[in-house]
Amino acid sequence: MLIVMKPRATAHEIDAVVDLITEIGLRAHPMPGATRTAIGITGNEGPIDGRRFENLPGVAEVIRVTKPYKLVTLDLRPDKTVVRVGGATIGGSELAIIAGPCAIESREQAFAVAKTVQKSGARFFRGGVWKPRTSPYTFQGLGDKAWQILTEIRDTFGVKIVTEAVEESHVDLIEKYGDVIQIGARNMQNFSLLKRAGRSKVPVLLKRGMAATLEEWLLAAEYIMAEGNYNVILCERGVRTFAQHTRNTLDLAAVPAIRRISHLPIIVDPSHGTGTAYMVTPLARAGIAVGADGLMIEVHNRPELALSDSAQALTPAEYAQLIEEVHAIRNVMARAGCGLNAS
Amino acid sequence: MLIVMKPRATAHEIDAVVDLITEIGLRAHPMPGATRTAIGITGNEGPIDGRRFENLPGVAEVIRVTKPYKLVTLDLRPDKTVVRVGGATIGGSELAIIAGPCAIESREQAFAVAKTVQKSGARFFRGGVWKPRTSPYTFQGLGDKAWQILTEIRDTFGVKIVTEAVEESHVDLIEKYGDVIQIGARNMQNFSLLKRAGRSKVPVLLKRGMAATLEEWLLAAEYIMAEGNYNVILCERGVRTFAQHTRNTLDLAAVPAIRRISHLPIIVDPSHGTGTAYMVTPLARAGIAVGADGLMIEVHNRPELALSDSAQALTPAEYAQLIEEVHAIRNVMARAGCGLNAS
Amino acid sequence: MLIVMKPRATAHEIDAVVDLITEIGLRAHPMPGATRTAIGITGNEGPIDGRRFENLPGVAEVIRVTKPYKLVTLDLRPDKTVVRVGGATIGGSELAIIAGPCAIESREQAFAVAKTVQKSGARFFRGGVWKPRTSPYTFQGLGDKAWQILTEIRDTFGVKIVTEAVEESHVDLIEKYGDVIQIGARNMQNFSLLKRAGRSKVPVLLKRGMAATLEEWLLAAEYIMAEGNYNVILCERGVRTFAQHTRNTLDLAAVPAIRRISHLPIIVDPSHGTGTAYMVTPLARAGIAVGADGLMIEVHNRPELALSDSAQALTPAEYAQLIEEVHAIRNVMARAGCGLNAS
Amino acid sequence: MLIVMKPRATAHEIDAVVDLITEIGLRAHPMPGATRTAIGITGNEGPIDGRRFENLPGVAEVIRVTKPYKLVTLDLRPDKTVVRVGGATIGGSELAIIAGPCAIESREQAFAVAKTVQKSGARFFRGGVWKPRTSPYTFQGLGDKAWQILTEIRDTFGVKIVTEAVEESHVDLIEKYGDVIQIGARNMQNFSLLKRAGRSKVPVLLKRGMAATLEEWLLAAEYIMAEGNYNVILCERGVRTFAQHTRNTLDLAAVPAIRRISHLPIIVDPSHGTGTAYMVTPLARAGIAVGADGLMIEVHNRPELALSDSAQALTPAEYAQLIEEVHAIRNVMARAGCGLNAS
Repeated sequence: MLIVMKPRATAHEIDAVVDLITEIGLRAHPMPGATRTAIGITGNEGPIDGRRFENLPGVAEVIRVTKPYKLVTLDLRPDKTVVRVGGATIGGSELAIIAGPCAIESREQAFAVAKTVQKSGARFFRGGVWKPRTSPYTFQGLGDKAWQILTEIRDTFGVKIVTEAVEESHVDLIEKYGDVIQIGARNMQNFSLLKRAGRSKVPVLLKRGMAATLEEWLLAAEYIMAEGNYNVILCERGVRTFAQHTRNTLDLAAVPAIRRISHLPIIVDPSHGTGTAYMVTPLARAGIAVGADGLMIEVHNRPELALSDSAQALTPAEYAQLIEEVHAIRNVMARAGCGLNAS
Repeated sequence: MLIVMKPRATAHEIDAVVDLITEIGLRAHPMPGATRTAIGITGNEGPIDGRRFENLPGVAEVIRVTKPYKLVTLDLRPDKTVVRVGGATIGGSELAIIAGPCAIESREQAFAVAKTVQKSGARFFRGGVWKPRTSPYTFQGLGDKAWQILTEIRDTFGVKIVTEAVEESHVDLIEKYGDVIQIGARNMQNFSLLKRAGRSKVPVLLKRGMAATLEEWLLAAEYIMAEGNYNVILCERGVRTFAQHTRNTLDLAAVPAIRRISHLPIIVDPSHGTGTAYMVTPLARAGIAVGADGLMIEVHNRPELALSDSAQALTPAEYAQLIEEVHAIRNVMARAGCGLNAS
Repeated sequence: MLIVMKPRATAHEIDAVVDLITEIGLRAHPMPGATRTAIGITGNEGPIDGRRFENLPGVAEVIRVTKPYKLVTLDLRPDKTVVRVGGATIGGSELAIIAGPCAIESREQAFAVAKTVQKSGARFFRGGVWKPRTSPYTFQGLGDKAWQILTEIRDTFGVKIVTEAVEESHVDLIEKYGDVIQIGARNMQNFSLLKRAGRSKVPVLLKRGMAATLEEWLLAAEYIMAEGNYNVILCERGVRTFAQHTRNTLDLAAVPAIRRISHLPIIVDPSHGTGTAYMVTPLARAGIAVGADGLMIEVHNRPELALSDSAQALTPAEYAQLIEEVHAIRNVMARAGCGLNAS
Repeated sequence: MLIVMKPRATAHEIDAVVDLITEIGLRAHPMPGATRTAIGITGNEGPIDGRRFENLPGVAEVIRVTKPYKLVTLDLRPDKTVVRVGGATIGGSELAIIAGPCAIESREQAFAVAKTVQKSGARFFRGGVWKPRTSPYTFQGLGDKAWQILTEIRDTFGVKIVTEAVEESHVDLIEKYGDVIQIGARNMQNFSLLKRAGRSKVPVLLKRGMAATLEEWLLAAEYIMAEGNYNVILCERGVRTFAQHTRNTLDLAAVPAIRRISHLPIIVDPSHGTGTAYMVTPLARAGIAVGADGLMIEVHNRPELALSDSAQALTPAEYAQLIEEVHAIRNVMARAGCGLNAS
């Protein structure tokens, strides 16, 4: 932390800052300059809330130097994390594909889609059991009934089940019947839920919040890891901007940015990231080209009848074409050795 | 809902849209125009997810006509809601002031601040028991110990207690020991928590999410009301933008916009809305001038030692000055009769 | 400028940074810490582009310490600037009202509105001569013909004329026939136009760009002042965000933030800031309450027939009511002495 | 245009809307529904400013149906535009690479970079002659001296010269000495400059404004085309959001979105889109994978000494590697036939 004083700050004002630093148990290092004095702070173990200094007389600016996270960082663990789910992996050389409908609507629908997903070589099947919906008057998911269907799908198709936990009790059920706990964008800072997921042995897929900075997102991962669960997969799914041509703005720069800071694997969700079927394939290609470890894709056997997110679901044929294209790009990148490792 | 076809849409494509509308149980009303056909949809009880039509061949645009909420609207209830908490009110002629520290840190701190709050004539005391913090390594609130302190404060000063529920079990405790359940910005779409608050008899103060549209915010209120709790107070606390001079961008246009749609009272939180003490008083004045029903203000007996949000807390003297100024503006407005009723 | 090295930066990497600092003519001050070294830079006269250091091996972060502007700052001129236009002032004790139609459409329209404006006690009449419109197919202003009308209005009603310059040649005309040069949001970084206005003796009203940070806005003012024209008035007119209930998001926190940094007067434009007539009056009140030096308001004798911005123009009656309300609030504030001076 | 009345709108209010429609020369088509009436408008040739209806009594919402542009659309010209510059093309099967330094700083620098660019097979050399800089105190470009250098480079290396026009007189010079007129993000709505470029015979590269919607961007292109110059190339260069890990947020969804509406070629600028060298190559790959027609890349022979944008310039070696990777991805896409045509 560095506190920059105003050009005309008095010796008295500088002393008052130094005294407050001392009072909260830290060490102050005043550095007088030509026009102004800066005061360095050391002796802190975790991050300090430097905002307390902002309103003191004579203070011009408070500058934070150290980053507030630790377990997520490459400093702590220089090698990339590879999350293993049975035989499948996320973050290694394998391209991870998580595909399926937005929500489980019926046995017929789920089986039709699961067949498509398995055929494509994807190892993960997604399908919502409980749907967090903006309006209380729209389809909220099948709940328990969906679990029976998902269990059958796991047995029949040998795919791993990824489903969203909307409350803590859902984590119990996913531990019993599923393979990966998804934390949705709306719950990225639901800290009770993060802590519960952190006490689980099941890997956690953590979506970025709608307006979350990378720091907030990584700190949400830190909440999970601080409880002991190190198998966290980050998922970029677009952020809210002024744009109207797309539901969210997919922020692909997050992928290299996360790689620079963290060892955690990161995948991209172009379905929620765009909200519109015709954009999903181009942005899926871009997600792989930017260096993501995998994709989450919504597929539906009959998108126009889907009970939720119908505009962004791909048909089985569109999905098959997408898979072909992203593998082609991934192969080119593997040959070139680009973008796949922490930098 | 209105579906606008492309200029060269074929009769076949138009028929396909009409058929899908019929298949999902609604009525289609094709309206041929000079250059293109539009198809109206009626027969729906709640809102329809019109996005399913977007990818059909020949469709240019899908336009939603009806709004997705009902209980929050002036259509349903033309008179403004006045929330009563004991003898105090929010939404009526009284200016509601909710003030106190970000978090309860100690008996001494809480009592010192409560005295200041009571003296100012404010009827509501805020103070966090559990703090949802971005980092797992920062102060998380005193928890149960804070309840003892708050209970004493309620008895001693006669103020109503407003505190945030971070998980469902907290609602039980607020029902026992508090007066208003606060739902924070990060939990605005934590639907389990909203439903739990909706089953309570205690009023709910619902903060706007960091990047929530008015529609999403009102639908979150609708979740609470749909469970039977009609005593909802909205709280504008700033949204996330590119701005760097302020922690959030306080969106005061939300106040007249909400008034146009909803009967619910709305207050403004300039402390979180700006994140910086020197801006709190000017924006508090602006909040009252724009027509808000009240304010939520952070005060601390010694802001520079506060364990959270220290940069935005006012000193007792700054707070007293703020209260004086906002009452003067409110009085002017009451005399002019402006901005206080639903338009 | 402060360069923070990574925890494991080598002595060699630190030396390379020091060498580059020296190579570009500045002085380096390495400060070794417990876990990492920081390197201070001094000797620069203007701001340094510190981004050049970001990609050097071993560098973790580059932190700018000094602000890049000088003429706009309170450091340079501690007293608030009062811009004088004939007998009228902006930035002093007088509340400055600039009102009129979006564009001059006809003699009848302009005279009808000017009468309303004069009657309200406003000293400034606005009216577009050339309209910068998003589409090339919409009304672009009357051009030269509008000048005749404005000249008559100036003579008849004794009001000062504020009009937007869209290109450099317009500044010549405003110097001849008008009183204040307006630079619109779309041209806030049209540096040729800023420099031309800076060489004028006529005051300049500089609107904030649609997505401009305060720093960019103040640097645009700095461009004008660097050419010798110190009579600059800033105008907050809303920024672009994800919000859909309002055309722009009026950022009233900009008012106290500018006050903290700059001696320049600042006014608020709630007409463009909201884009909707029913919001203009509440946000005008808020603008005055937050401490702005004045308002810019769109009025039309018959808004529903206006050729541009019809949705945000007030009727004469609505405008008269607005003026009454804002004066009442201003009076309260003057009595309390709040928000009107640089802090 | 569709005007939706409120549920309780009176017959009188409906008539008033119909009358106003008639008064401005259009035809009204009232369509009574179960709960509310909608009124269609026809007879307009260009777009109507529907906002004028928003404040009429009884009006709930005004819904625009037709899009406001024409020359840019696929409706007008279903085949993709291929812009030809001498023997080079943008928008065809060739991958267009525009590379060079941010600004021409010296003959040595420019020649060193031009050699790298030519060697990579790129056909276009960029280099700023006049630099629009946020601060008046930073390097503003070499001006006329840069033209001599660029002319020599064109002769020596056979590359096409792309440079930014900051004012109308610059267009004259580019017509004489250059090959492509660049309009920068800050000038995207400088309509005088757009019109001047529209009267030129030289192709125009139009960068997206910092907070421009696609509609505003396409209308800026429409300004150029309406004057007769149909050789417009769009360039996505990132938009401003709350993100702090990147200078701008590169909006790659703009590429498929533009493809859906317009026949104009579109390229991506990952240098300005990210602002940081380590992100440029991954985002360049993503830009090609999403289907862009080319890239604009900043290269410098010694980035750490660059006088502007030093943090985002690639070294010659990094640039060569980028070119190799993007060609590999482009080849895969060409084989798969994906993303390259208007959809």
